[in-house]
Amino acid sequence: MKTFKIAVIAGDGIGPEVIDEGIKVLNKTAELDSGFRFDFTYFPWGCEFYAKHGKMMDDNGIEQLKEFDAIYLGAVGFPGVPDHVSLWELLLKIRKSFDQYVNIRPIKLLKGAHLPLVDVNREDINMLFIRENSEGEYAGAGDWLFKGQENEVVLQNSVFSRKGTERIIRYAFETAKREGRSLTSISKANALNYSMVFWDQVFEEVSRDYPEVETASYLVDAAAMLMIKDPKRFEVVVTSNLFGDILTDLGAALAGGIGLAAGANINPERHYPSMFEPIHGSAPDIAGQGLANPLASIWSASQMLDFFGCEDYGKTVLNAIEQLLLEQQVLTPDMGGTASTAEVGDRVVEIVASLA
Amino acid sequence: MKTFKIAVIAGDGIGPEVIDEGIKVLNKTAELDSGFRFDFTYFPWGCEFYAKHGKMMDDNGIEQLKEFDAIYLGAVGFPGVPDHVSLWELLLKIRKSFDQYVNIRPIKLLKGAHLPLVDVNREDINMLFIRENSEGEYAGAGDWLFKGQENEVVLQNSVFSRKGTERIIRYAFETAKREGRSLTSISKANALNYSMVFWDQVFEEVSRDYPEVETASYLVDAAAMLMIKDPKRFEVVVTSNLFGDILTDLGAALAGGIGLAAGANINPERHYPSMFEPIHGSAPDIAGQGLANPLASIWSASQMLDFFGCEDYGKTVLNAIEQLLLEQQVLTPDMGGTASTAEVGDRVVEIVASLA
Ligand SMILES: CC(C)[C@H](C(=O)O)[C@@H](O)C(=O)O
Ligand SMILES: CC(C)[C@H](C(=O)O)[C@@H](O)C(=O)O
Repeated sequence: MKTFKIAVIAGDGIGPEVIDEGIKVLNKTAELDSGFRFDFTYFPWGCEFYAKHGKMMDDNGIEQLKEFDAIYLGAVGFPGVPDHVSLWELLLKIRKSFDQYVNIRPIKLLKGAHLPLVDVNREDINMLFIRENSEGEYAGAGDWLFKGQENEVVLQNSVFSRKGTERIIRYAFETAKREGRSLTSISKANALNYSMVFWDQVFEEVSRDYPEVETASYLVDAAAMLMIKDPKRFEVVVTSNLFGDILTDLGAALAGGIGLAAGANINPERHYPSMFEPIHGSAPDIAGQGLANPLASIWSASQMLDFFGCEDYGKTVLNAIEQLLLEQQVLTPDMGGTASTAEVGDRVVEIVASLA
Repeated sequence: MKTFKIAVIAGDGIGPEVIDEGIKVLNKTAELDSGFRFDFTYFPWGCEFYAKHGKMMDDNGIEQLKEFDAIYLGAVGFPGVPDHVSLWELLLKIRKSFDQYVNIRPIKLLKGAHLPLVDVNREDINMLFIRENSEGEYAGAGDWLFKGQENEVVLQNSVFSRKGTERIIRYAFETAKREGRSLTSISKANALNYSMVFWDQVFEEVSRDYPEVETASYLVDAAAMLMIKDPKRFEVVVTSNLFGDILTDLGAALAGGIGLAAGANINPERHYPSMFEPIHGSAPDIAGQGLANPLASIWSASQMLDFFGCEDYGKTVLNAIEQLLLEQQVLTPDMGGTASTAEVGDRVVEIVASLA
């Protein structure tokens, strides 16, 4: 029997609540299958930890995480700790230290989820975003000169390496090829006259190795508009770190809301653990009240199952979410229901059991 | 009688067609008023010019434009000329040379325009975007190292100066104060750990001078989502060059489509001419067929009237667009009609005359 060792960083705000439900669901799949089990280890890192210890994680935190098969993360951030501290020293640190250079975000309107657009068919919202997750605009490079003086100037430097750009684009082509879908690149070469000219060039080069994949290319501003006007144009999408960040939140608004948006931070070579997390933040205003929607966290658990090669169970969990949405019975307030976080998790567990 | 000297750069693709209609409308307002007239001078600059002369404008083009009261621009870009050439040597060059550091983009759903969202009231879409237009992500600074080698790396450097950041934020506060509306800043300090930390700091500082203006602050990703979920939160909005670019196209999709999206590039000190342009591109695929929607171009003409202190006529032109939309009779194909570009322009002229 295979044991998957999972590091759980439930984090701040609603993080612990939504992670609990994902774990229930993962445990249920393991219970249904004799081939694998999960071994969860909890790490108390986050903003509360910071308040006590003046740091977001143990000094050797990255070292400690190395031995795990995956990381399951809730949410990071709490008033009082500046975001650029809490994130750079935890979430972004893990993404970068473990070279999780692929961020996979399905933007798919499940059956039963609410369609917010008038002119679009539900099936048209079915994209798979592949976001560069290790460098680019988020390289963390910059400078702050002449602080407080009249000539004060602040630089933020994007770094697009050949290696970093090529591998994410290649990964996206492989995905599009495997799924038999088109690949759209989103960039902005007309204004970002170094980085995005390079991005477009690499996309062009790599595309020659995949003559069977249909491609398209949009400017990020046009893409933001077209995702609303004509989302069916987008199937598999590859884009930079910042653009992926913005467009997947936009996408979440189209695909049932942020309460349903899941993400996987993948190190494809499996040299390091990959990390699974809901896209939403820590929502401190509703924390601890059982109001948080656990479906994004459960969806990311389904991505974890896929990643472990348990695609059947990954699919079952996703189907269970879909069935729950279709039932319209057990939903949290953000989706118009009155159920608690735990009630939603329990119902997903029941459906998983019934579908398996 | 005041004469406003306008430099017309109709540009590429549908640019000339839509500009013609804006000029018709401007001339009609002048005809109705004995206090002002327009003097239009045409410049043949753009991609066709580039094909002939290897440059986008005359060498002393900026010098030539200096003496005008305003520039009226159609669209720039045509297949065969790389975008980063056509734009940096014309549109962006003008914005920068004339220190047009304020980009004003109304995201307002006019009566009669199509509301694409299910859960939102039409009146909720009424934002005024004030985009930094001179520096930031569009500074054009960067480097391309080790070209073609394995360690190739491309840098794109955003530059946020104290002067540039403070003046746009101050302009936005002045606008919000004058209009009695709230001001929302959109940034991304959690990931862009130099530039956007600085932006937030300056916003905080300047806000102290405007205790009467209600403020809010969102991350750009959250803002992209909330503009769809809950647009009424946004009244006056101030943001960086790139974020403003992306979010105003998103906004255009909410506010009747890109065919209705206008923009003004303003040098508030009036040391240099300001520039008025539709947000849309040159759409070479439909150029020369009378299919282009001139309403964005006409709306930007209305912004020009406001800028010249002829706010009554600016308002009349906007009301005329609104009435045309309510009539639902004379519309171009992108809005579901069968009228030509010129027919739409003619009808706006008629309505302007009837309203004046
Ligand atoms: C929290 C923040 C740094 C992060 C990002 O921008 O990457 C988040 O918005 C996301 O999309 O995962
Ligand atoms: C054409 C392009 C450089 C420009 C920009 O990004 O500023 C356009 O998209 C706009 O928004 O005016």
